[in-house]
Amino acid sequence: MFEWLFGRRRRAKAPVLGSRLDAIGAADRIDLSDLTPDLVSFLGQTAYLELAVFQSLSRVVAEAPNLAIKEGISVVAGEALAKHQGLVAELRKKKVDPAVAMQPFTQAIDQFEVLTRGRDWYETLLGIYITAGFLDDFFARLVTGLPRTVAARVSEVLTTAGSDSVIIAALREGMEADPDLGARLALWGRRLVGDTQLVARSAIAASDTAEGIHRRIEPVFTDLLGAHSRRMDELGLTA
Amino acid sequence: MFEWLFGRRRRAKAPVLGSRLDAIGAADRIDLSDLTPDLVSFLGQTAYLELAVFQSLSRVVAEAPNLAIKEGISVVAGEALAKHQGLVAELRKKKVDPAVAMQPFTQAIDQFEVLTRGRDWYETLLGIYITAGFLDDFFARLVTGLPRTVAARVSEVLTTAGSDSVIIAALREGMEADPDLGARLALWGRRLVGDTQLVARSAIAASDTAEGIHRRIEPVFTDLLGAHSRRMDELGLTA
Repeated sequence: MFEWLFGRRRRAKAPVLGSRLDAIGAADRIDLSDLTPDLVSFLGQTAYLELAVFQSLSRVVAEAPNLAIKEGISVVAGEALAKHQGLVAELRKKKVDPAVAMQPFTQAIDQFEVLTRGRDWYETLLGIYITAGFLDDFFARLVTGLPRTVAARVSEVLTTAGSDSVIIAALREGMEADPDLGARLALWGRRLVGDTQLVARSAIAASDTAEGIHRRIEPVFTDLLGAHSRRMDELGLTA
Repeated sequence: MFEWLFGRRRRAKAPVLGSRLDAIGAADRIDLSDLTPDLVSFLGQTAYLELAVFQSLSRVVAEAPNLAIKEGISVVAGEALAKHQGLVAELRKKKVDPAVAMQPFTQAIDQFEVLTRGRDWYETLLGIYITAGFLDDFFARLVTGLPRTVAARVSEVLTTAGSDSVIIAALREGMEADPDLGARLALWGRRLVGDTQLVARSAIAASDTAEGIHRRIEPVFTDLLGAHSRRMDELGLTA
């Protein structure tokens, strides 16, 4: 369904990475480095993903229910844009035209954006929060397969903590005002995480049998679903 | 028509400002300091203006004709957001809630945004470029009436050079592809500058007779129209 993957392989052995990346989390122990797309594909894909997140958040800003929330979400939009710009800067360092690197991924990411657009402002905001959170985490796990010099910087871009509290406050405010919203958001969150896993799965390099990939990616997904559950918990929702 | 002005007066005498502000230009010599709105109104108004510019640019990003332009204009959108955030930071330093400070100006600025929205992507982009350029210049001239400690920082926020070349390239690309676009944009530019002057005029503090204000503001407008003409010139358009 999602053809994010353009199976160009990079060299099979991952470099051993320094302390900076150890901060990412426990699933570092699972070596996914041969599943990492080549550098330009990785950067093109993540750069366009962050640009799409920025665009979605900009729409959320434009349609915010009040000025305080508008102001708050504009900060989050700026953070997504900064991530995009950080990844684009890496492409430029490699003398790669960012537009050319991003182009192969636009269609699938645009489709995913449409799919995860909610029926109202709150669903859309939850959608961005949940999917961008999951995918940032996921790509951060694949960073170990990038060349050593780039990996630390890219990891830092992807794992920079955002202003989640603004999103949480806005969603909580909506749920307080509308008693039905919580149940709707819980359902929506569950649907999103399924679609997001499909997208993540399609982003990796096909360097193993489907069975082999499945076996290795499952523990990572389990980890990422833990982070997802914590995000839902903070909203008072069951994942 | 535009009621940006909430006539709260600040103390009449402007502080003498340092070398940083001398860089703004010749019209510094015309003392407009008693026309400057009080600090919170100034910051609320400019902060919301930049937020509106950011929102307009985000829409331009979303609808960009190609990925290279999308990427380029996203940088410009980020610059407008950074201006907004710089002005919001000044409000926070004064322990003023940014949403409260911006609220009085939302309606007029939203109306202005609708008025300056073009019939197509290129007109809209020209509209943002021309109106934001003029108004940034205009508010930068009023900075001399702000308290000394804030003035230099606000001036720096407002006069930070943006990625104009990206906008110019996008508009030129459009005019090359469509021979009728140039004439349409020239006309649109002329209409915009009239509306923008009305908005600028409505933003100042009413500390003089209408006649007196007119006499003093005219040389400033003449200056700003010079900058406007240079912007249009760079596009190969007659102002």
